Amino acid sequence: MPKVTAEHRLARRAQIVAAARTLVAEQGFHKTTMADLIEVSGLSAGAVYGYFKSKEEIVAAIAEEALGTVENLFDDFVDPQQPMSPIDALERLLQHVVSLAERPGGDVTRIALQAWAEALHNPAVMAIAGAKYTDIRGRFELVARRAQAAGILDPDADPRHIAQVLFGLLPGFVLQRLILGDTTPETYTAGLRAVLRG
Amino acid sequence: MPKVTAEHRLARRAQIVAAARTLVAEQGFHKTTMADLIEVSGLSAGAVYGYFKSKEEIVAAIAEEALGTVENLFDDFVDPQQPMSPIDALERLLQHVVSLAERPGGDVTRIALQAWAEALHNPAVMAIAGAKYTDIRGRFELVARRAQAAGILDPDADPRHIAQVLFGLLPGFVLQRLILGDTTPETYTAGLRAVLRG
Repeated sequence: MPKVTAEHRLARRAQIVAAARTLVAEQGFHKTTMADLIEVSGLSAGAVYGYFKSKEEIVAAIAEEALGTVENLFDDFVDPQQPMSPIDALERLLQHVVSLAERPGGDVTRIALQAWAEALHNPAVMAIAGAKYTDIRGRFELVARRAQAAGILDPDADPRHIAQVLFGLLPGFVLQRLILGDTTPETYTAGLRAVLRG
Repeated sequence: MPKVTAEHRLARRAQIVAAARTLVAEQGFHKTTMADLIEVSGLSAGAVYGYFKSKEEIVAAIAEEALGTVENLFDDFVDPQQPMSPIDALERLLQHVVSLAERPGGDVTRIALQAWAEALHNPAVMAIAGAKYTDIRGRFELVARRAQAAGILDPDADPRHIAQVLFGLLPGFVLQRLILGDTTPETYTAGLRAVLRG
């Protein structure tokens, strides 16, 4: 056996996940086969199976990546420790979701839609979705608590309920962008600001 | 051929659609077969194929029913011609979505999630989703216009952008209810009212 560094293994795994993301974004989880994945990844069957033993493991890895997109954005662009109006936080998240979706190599928001449907019938994906979305809502709860402490939001409201609404605005944005095509971070936040001013 | 009345045909079709709804809510579009449907419907293969020539036709019928749920609720519970605060309209819709979802015979919101994913790879379902959601957003746009005319919402805002946000709150509610289980019309509208007061 040749000596394989951890770095090399991570790069190989990323290469396989990237191939799977492209396939799933194009054709969905159900139509994607291990044979497709081996072909698109450019690796041997043995190499692919060395990282992922079954299609189920690939589906879980791709779902985890797609459902965690907004989680990673919080780390990069939103500091829940700083008071920020919830709408400003949302606007930043929407802009970055779109910029990620438009990257070549598979629209991550298309995969998120697949993962929502898959979660209902696949306990592994449901567990990933539950954990990721609990975490993301927790980030929004921190945004809400900071906004309450800073006097931007009503301090008597339950920050968990505010977090449900802030998080709850994201799926409808993604869905309209994919199905109706006319919804952008600019139009969506303009609508939200109008409702808030109302 | 026995004489079959139009009423009888409609009842038969509804029986098949109900069986398909139960199956799709449990196991998704991809795992549901015509053989399953024939078994669960209690009809003969000939009878089922007399109404739906392929699985694709059943998928389209089920998607149309699920994606039109909110559309029908507008007719029954929300009068876009009456000025109503958008949050009151949303609260009524959420309550009725939940009451429909809890009916025996297949949670329609589970089917909606399947239909969103299916739309990305199935042009017939995409066309249905596009038409239904354009119509539903149009209803929200009327709610917005009436609220603007009544002084409840800023008259200078674009009612189409307001409609994107009002419609956009529904998928995130459905998703949290199915995946996290803790989101109810009461908690969601409480959070929304807090954000609006902010």
